[in-house]
Amino acid sequence: MCGIFGAYSPKGSSVLEEVYLGLYALQHRGQESAGIAWSNSGGTIGAMKGMGLVHKALDQNALAEMSSFAAIGHVRYSTAGGSFSANAQPLTATYARGDVAIAHNGNLTNANGTRQLLQSRGAIFQSTGDTEVILHLMAHQSHKPPLDALLSSLRRLRGAFSLAVLLGNRLVAARDPWGFRPLVLGKREDSWYVASESCALDIIGAKLVRDVRPGEVLIIDHKEVQSLTIPHAASRQHLCSFEYVYFARPDSVIDGVSVYNARKEMGRRLAKENPVPADLVTGMPDSGTIAAIGYAEGAVIPYEKAVVRNRYVGRTFIQPTQRVREIGVRIKLNPIGEIMRDKDVVIVDDSLVRGTTSKRMVRMIRDAGATKVHLRIASPPVRFPCYYGIDTPTTEELVAARMDLPALEKLVEADSLSYISKEDLLASIGIDPCRMCTACFTGEYMEEKDHEPEL
Amino acid sequence: MCGIFGAYSPKGSSVLEEVYLGLYALQHRGQESAGIAWSNSGGTIGAMKGMGLVHKALDQNALAEMSSFAAIGHVRYSTAGGSFSANAQPLTATYARGDVAIAHNGNLTNANGTRQLLQSRGAIFQSTGDTEVILHLMAHQSHKPPLDALLSSLRRLRGAFSLAVLLGNRLVAARDPWGFRPLVLGKREDSWYVASESCALDIIGAKLVRDVRPGEVLIIDHKEVQSLTIPHAASRQHLCSFEYVYFARPDSVIDGVSVYNARKEMGRRLAKENPVPADLVTGMPDSGTIAAIGYAEGAVIPYEKAVVRNRYVGRTFIQPTQRVREIGVRIKLNPIGEIMRDKDVVIVDDSLVRGTTSKRMVRMIRDAGATKVHLRIASPPVRFPCYYGIDTPTTEELVAARMDLPALEKLVEADSLSYISKEDLLASIGIDPCRMCTACFTGEYMEEKDHEPEL
Amino acid sequence: MCGIFGAYSPKGSSVLEEVYLGLYALQHRGQESAGIAWSNSGGTIGAMKGMGLVHKALDQNALAEMSSFAAIGHVRYSTAGGSFSANAQPLTATYARGDVAIAHNGNLTNANGTRQLLQSRGAIFQSTGDTEVILHLMAHQSHKPPLDALLSSLRRLRGAFSLAVLLGNRLVAARDPWGFRPLVLGKREDSWYVASESCALDIIGAKLVRDVRPGEVLIIDHKEVQSLTIPHAASRQHLCSFEYVYFARPDSVIDGVSVYNARKEMGRRLAKENPVPADLVTGMPDSGTIAAIGYAEGAVIPYEKAVVRNRYVGRTFIQPTQRVREIGVRIKLNPIGEIMRDKDVVIVDDSLVRGTTSKRMVRMIRDAGATKVHLRIASPPVRFPCYYGIDTPTTEELVAARMDLPALEKLVEADSLSYISKEDLLASIGIDPCRMCTACFTGEYMEEKDHEPEL
Amino acid sequence: MCGIFGAYSPKGSSVLEEVYLGLYALQHRGQESAGIAWSNSGGTIGAMKGMGLVHKALDQNALAEMSSFAAIGHVRYSTAGGSFSANAQPLTATYARGDVAIAHNGNLTNANGTRQLLQSRGAIFQSTGDTEVILHLMAHQSHKPPLDALLSSLRRLRGAFSLAVLLGNRLVAARDPWGFRPLVLGKREDSWYVASESCALDIIGAKLVRDVRPGEVLIIDHKEVQSLTIPHAASRQHLCSFEYVYFARPDSVIDGVSVYNARKEMGRRLAKENPVPADLVTGMPDSGTIAAIGYAEGAVIPYEKAVVRNRYVGRTFIQPTQRVREIGVRIKLNPIGEIMRDKDVVIVDDSLVRGTTSKRMVRMIRDAGATKVHLRIASPPVRFPCYYGIDTPTTEELVAARMDLPALEKLVEADSLSYISKEDLLASIGIDPCRMCTACFTGEYMEEKDHEPEL
Repeated sequence: MCGIFGAYSPKGSSVLEEVYLGLYALQHRGQESAGIAWSNSGGTIGAMKGMGLVHKALDQNALAEMSSFAAIGHVRYSTAGGSFSANAQPLTATYARGDVAIAHNGNLTNANGTRQLLQSRGAIFQSTGDTEVILHLMAHQSHKPPLDALLSSLRRLRGAFSLAVLLGNRLVAARDPWGFRPLVLGKREDSWYVASESCALDIIGAKLVRDVRPGEVLIIDHKEVQSLTIPHAASRQHLCSFEYVYFARPDSVIDGVSVYNARKEMGRRLAKENPVPADLVTGMPDSGTIAAIGYAEGAVIPYEKAVVRNRYVGRTFIQPTQRVREIGVRIKLNPIGEIMRDKDVVIVDDSLVRGTTSKRMVRMIRDAGATKVHLRIASPPVRFPCYYGIDTPTTEELVAARMDLPALEKLVEADSLSYISKEDLLASIGIDPCRMCTACFTGEYMEEKDHEPEL
Repeated sequence: MCGIFGAYSPKGSSVLEEVYLGLYALQHRGQESAGIAWSNSGGTIGAMKGMGLVHKALDQNALAEMSSFAAIGHVRYSTAGGSFSANAQPLTATYARGDVAIAHNGNLTNANGTRQLLQSRGAIFQSTGDTEVILHLMAHQSHKPPLDALLSSLRRLRGAFSLAVLLGNRLVAARDPWGFRPLVLGKREDSWYVASESCALDIIGAKLVRDVRPGEVLIIDHKEVQSLTIPHAASRQHLCSFEYVYFARPDSVIDGVSVYNARKEMGRRLAKENPVPADLVTGMPDSGTIAAIGYAEGAVIPYEKAVVRNRYVGRTFIQPTQRVREIGVRIKLNPIGEIMRDKDVVIVDDSLVRGTTSKRMVRMIRDAGATKVHLRIASPPVRFPCYYGIDTPTTEELVAARMDLPALEKLVEADSLSYISKEDLLASIGIDPCRMCTACFTGEYMEEKDHEPEL
Repeated sequence: MCGIFGAYSPKGSSVLEEVYLGLYALQHRGQESAGIAWSNSGGTIGAMKGMGLVHKALDQNALAEMSSFAAIGHVRYSTAGGSFSANAQPLTATYARGDVAIAHNGNLTNANGTRQLLQSRGAIFQSTGDTEVILHLMAHQSHKPPLDALLSSLRRLRGAFSLAVLLGNRLVAARDPWGFRPLVLGKREDSWYVASESCALDIIGAKLVRDVRPGEVLIIDHKEVQSLTIPHAASRQHLCSFEYVYFARPDSVIDGVSVYNARKEMGRRLAKENPVPADLVTGMPDSGTIAAIGYAEGAVIPYEKAVVRNRYVGRTFIQPTQRVREIGVRIKLNPIGEIMRDKDVVIVDDSLVRGTTSKRMVRMIRDAGATKVHLRIASPPVRFPCYYGIDTPTTEELVAARMDLPALEKLVEADSLSYISKEDLLASIGIDPCRMCTACFTGEYMEEKDHEPEL
Repeated sequence: MCGIFGAYSPKGSSVLEEVYLGLYALQHRGQESAGIAWSNSGGTIGAMKGMGLVHKALDQNALAEMSSFAAIGHVRYSTAGGSFSANAQPLTATYARGDVAIAHNGNLTNANGTRQLLQSRGAIFQSTGDTEVILHLMAHQSHKPPLDALLSSLRRLRGAFSLAVLLGNRLVAARDPWGFRPLVLGKREDSWYVASESCALDIIGAKLVRDVRPGEVLIIDHKEVQSLTIPHAASRQHLCSFEYVYFARPDSVIDGVSVYNARKEMGRRLAKENPVPADLVTGMPDSGTIAAIGYAEGAVIPYEKAVVRNRYVGRTFIQPTQRVREIGVRIKLNPIGEIMRDKDVVIVDDSLVRGTTSKRMVRMIRDAGATKVHLRIASPPVRFPCYYGIDTPTTEELVAARMDLPALEKLVEADSLSYISKEDLLASIGIDPCRMCTACFTGEYMEEKDHEPEL
């Protein structure tokens, strides 16, 4: 998973620092690396990239002093199996028609075939990611004007892509025809912005104008914001439901729906669907908090912030010594014995993926004196990997793919375990189910007709 | 304000790393500097100190590899007007009877006179703090055995002190006769611990045995835990009520009272005392959260987590550029418009000191679309400075010392503003009011008979 | 200017650390960035690159733990006008025939035309340097086996290139037909090495086998070292004379000639050519030392190490404050007044480029009490820029291009100034003048027939 | 060994940066830590100290922006057995008469007894060094004015001390009655300076006025430079001869004698005393260079700079991996085979302490092709430890204390080995032998009548 942000200001003011701040608001979407690319006055493109969090990867003071009409930025999620600076985005390149930069959220499903085809035509790849394919598709159509080459390239892509692109002095935003990953358009005074989530518009005081539509390409320059459509007949949309469950920030609005409201409604419906007598409801810090508040409301049981998270977790790196491993999750979290003792407790979490965290939490609450511990999960069992940009574990590691509910209940040592149903999840979000992707719960991936890679 | 931690293990095992972890749990009590001192086998004392958070100031790996019978640690609060490494604690010294180390939470009220007297006898001071006075008082009684010299020195002190002291291979804990600052005793297997708060016992799996009593001195060695009393007739106790309001962690139990329960009860009583019709209750992140949950329960109004705090605040340093200053508090906090819009909102905070944060928050919530914004404060107006270790602003900066309630209400731009009463605050804590200190609300400081400094 | 190093070991032992150490010995050839690329067992290529000195850019411990059959390394000179990590070498790429890495010392004179041609065929450029052209030339001949594609690409290049290349598990070394930049072949036990200078063989205990011949390509694999020739009829060789004057380390042997001996002979001949009565001879630290020893011998005047260089210059970064600018060169260098006072002094330097350093030095020696200061330069006036890889200033900045000898003498405030002649310089080196490049002194560049870029 | 610097400017200008630069020039006298203390306008004293080289330990920019009338600085030598920040100087203290700061070069021989006496009077020691004794001696005489207390304290000291002291707004410099360590007085415009060596005056453009005399105390304030004498009848002076041999910079003048001239004369006399037929003379880089130039002149044999030192040694930290240990000294030094091969070589070093470096060097030169290798040492055998501030090894580690000349010759594998005689060493320096200390060569330490520590 990644986060992208783009800014265009006809006055060429503090665009770069705004991208920096936008990325800071999107930091939860990626912590491995961060980068910014900007248009220079001569049409060339400059870039600054680095590993780690935004403030470490980028030099805010230097960005605050530079001015530009257009800039894009990217935060990249830390994936298992090594992280390389060559994969940091935005990717930039100089080709026959000039400079281009691209920031990509999502995952292409036809990258490998296209890559091989491009290499046989002389292309050299610098990164191991799929995004570079887009650049080479453009470069191999250098007989067309840049924008035509970009559109023609996007038509060839399958899978998930929300993009921010710099073409000379123009800012281009695009969202794949299936709409997997979110992308919003914002405005402040004369300036235009695109962002993965609306919370990144809030931080710089921009207003959310609307979502970029699935299959839409926006071209922003001095004169106007022009809307084109990627010429591809997607059979249906596939908006990611997991963004509402876990990934997006609760203060974001995605495809017209408040993430906070969806998440709280999931808790409320979970309470109706899976009631259990209890003295208090609490949430897994911090991922389950909002669903827990909803659950408490739905079940009419008091909500308590019963597990305290050390406020320096994250700022502080504790070495995993022998002693620290013995202590385990208590290094970060401390249940309040005074309010747990001799009580029946419902603990709510957003999802259950590997099961290890849930097990530790159930045990910790029981050790703190709770009589019963009921675990409630505000999403259906995750049984299938995501091919559209969310870094889920392999099928073997997905605990719900390997065992049934009673076995899981035993595994996490809960007195009871239950999930929200897919139907209630979708109802909580409130978008037409036919437009949503629930592949990680159901295994129903997008239809992908076999097609030959083409140039 | 500071945090202290001491550990004694007759087996001399991983004591140093436990102090490290205890300090990590007490990090909220001080971020300026951190330090650890330990007994070496020959009776000498070693130390490691540094500026900044625990993980930066101290080398966890090195500590994990060292073994010792006894060790103490300290985290120091960042105070206004500069921070100096010479003030980092534990203070260590070599005097005629050997090595001694001391970690101090609190503030002495008779340090200046004593310091002058000591200097006239040839003493050299290295730090600007008051703690060093204790060391010199001991060193000028080098004809007595170390423990006698320590007790005799403690008798001369006025004001607040919770201490952890290393005397050769012994760990000594002491709490001033007035009991200003908390101090607890814990145990795990054969090992003994003292800590500013019980949450530091939890992290290492130790059990809370009891509070160190006001005026008590505990001497811990291979054989026993011995309890002595500082020979001073304090007219009454002065347990700090602000620890419950703000300073302590909610998962701590201080002088037998759960901080979480006290804080939630403050919210509940605040709701009863100052009701107002509203659609939702929310808390100032994170200081007002628990009181807000209590308020919502007391007022039977839904609680919402309506203001989102960027989860990277603290890990990330954002430069205060011009643009960032314009953005202000929105860099860190984002109100969720979807749940505020056209609603009457109660926002609860723990205290109102300078008023600037409250004003920004009220305005931010109103900008997010709230119709009315009612501010509720879970402590009485802070009108007087604290001389016992809490770093309150000067009287001129205390906004409640300068204006009455209507003026304050106007200042913070709230539709209504009200505080909990002193009586309800004390009732929420539940300890006999005659044992509590409320000087910052009432100006009633401890009686301090004029006395000459003596050696 | 840059330095390159390659190593091949059929046993696949500590090749990477040897490249690290070789680069450390070549550090004087480039301080902007350093990098290493190595062959992995599956034929892929890994790389580590960074900005700054070798020890900062690369992780020696990590390299010491990795094993590989073949590796190449590069140190890059810091050039005016900004340094970019994208330009750090070795450049690596994945193309249709697999991975390739390349380290380049020199400068191509036909890079621009070739670059444009490649871009029109769809190539994307990542760096602003000329080396990337070589990779794209190969990638556009992916129908040929890699080695054939490399040879065919080298044939198209004009200008200076000494190269170390990894093609899968093979190490390839190549030197341009004109022989501008040095390149030597070394051996230790079963391992083979190529290096810009023989001093890099010494550090790892390898023996100098011979120079790589102008126009020669060496292919090193498990079986043998094969020698091929670039099919290009260079009209004559152009071995760089400035390597002997300044650039190379004195302990290197280049094209069969000891740099130390050449440099000392330049001093000796300079003394014969331009004698002057004096009491002592000293050298500009450290560039003029060896020529000064030769001058003293030739003139039979005592040599003194009369100017002391602070031994912490380089380790220590002194901020250029106002006071430091006033102090000027004395921050680094201190003339010994006791041996200069009332003496006639000859100071020898290797070259005079901008004149500013010389002027400061002459003035400093005079201030130290010298009666007369005679400046002797062990190379002819530098009047023309180098297009073959040495980072000379532009013609306007070359002081000898703007004024005659009397004007220069006045500029540097010397009592006399003289240069060695081109003839004596070449005689000091001792290689046939028809094989040497003296373009920076004479403006006689290589003949370059106009030729169209081709693929 | 350490270096000290003090500056006094009646205009209170850039004194602090001058101390910084003075310490930079004295960096060779100590690399463990560096510190600066300065007088604030109210008579208090501020300080900045840190571990490592001057530029790392101190913040030049911050110092350049502060102004003060008087400041002192210190660089501390890295001694075996651990380095502690508590030992960094200048030491500062607040005592009954105000603030005082002290920077000390040398070693007291009666510190231990005095320390015990002071502790029995209530003194607390912070450091393990001997300098702190001076502060406590002053503090225990707080009935006297500060200057009287200082003088009275100095009278009680035995051993080596060159001091720079801040007493309120006055700068005090003192040199022990035996004169062990150097100390010079300098002047620039209205400002006065004291420094361990005159090279530190040169860097800031100050003139050397004269040496501070053994037993002299200089008090510098707005009005004058006053000279007092420590009331102690030293039986004779003990100026350190090893400063001329090795420790001081060659561009310094100590007690009227140029270190360069002394060092070169040692080489010249060594050649006369111990002639040997040879083809060339070279020096151990960099300690033996000047004596080698003198030897070559004395023996009329050509001097060559035959061993090249990697110019990045010191800037670069090479990890001591297995491979690096095999390579040994060649990591830093490379002999030039072209000028050594089949030659008889004389190599000159300043001293022979442990013998390991010499042995490696002799072997390296032989490996480079030399027929014979003759080692010449420009000081007599070091057989006794120094108690006056030079960090010599223990007697067991001093190779010359354990074996005779033939055994040493065999140990270092030289074809011949010889030392300069004590008489020629002293004649090279040229100061009356009765004023010089040669204890490390002869074991004749200063006479020290037994005396009781006193207060």
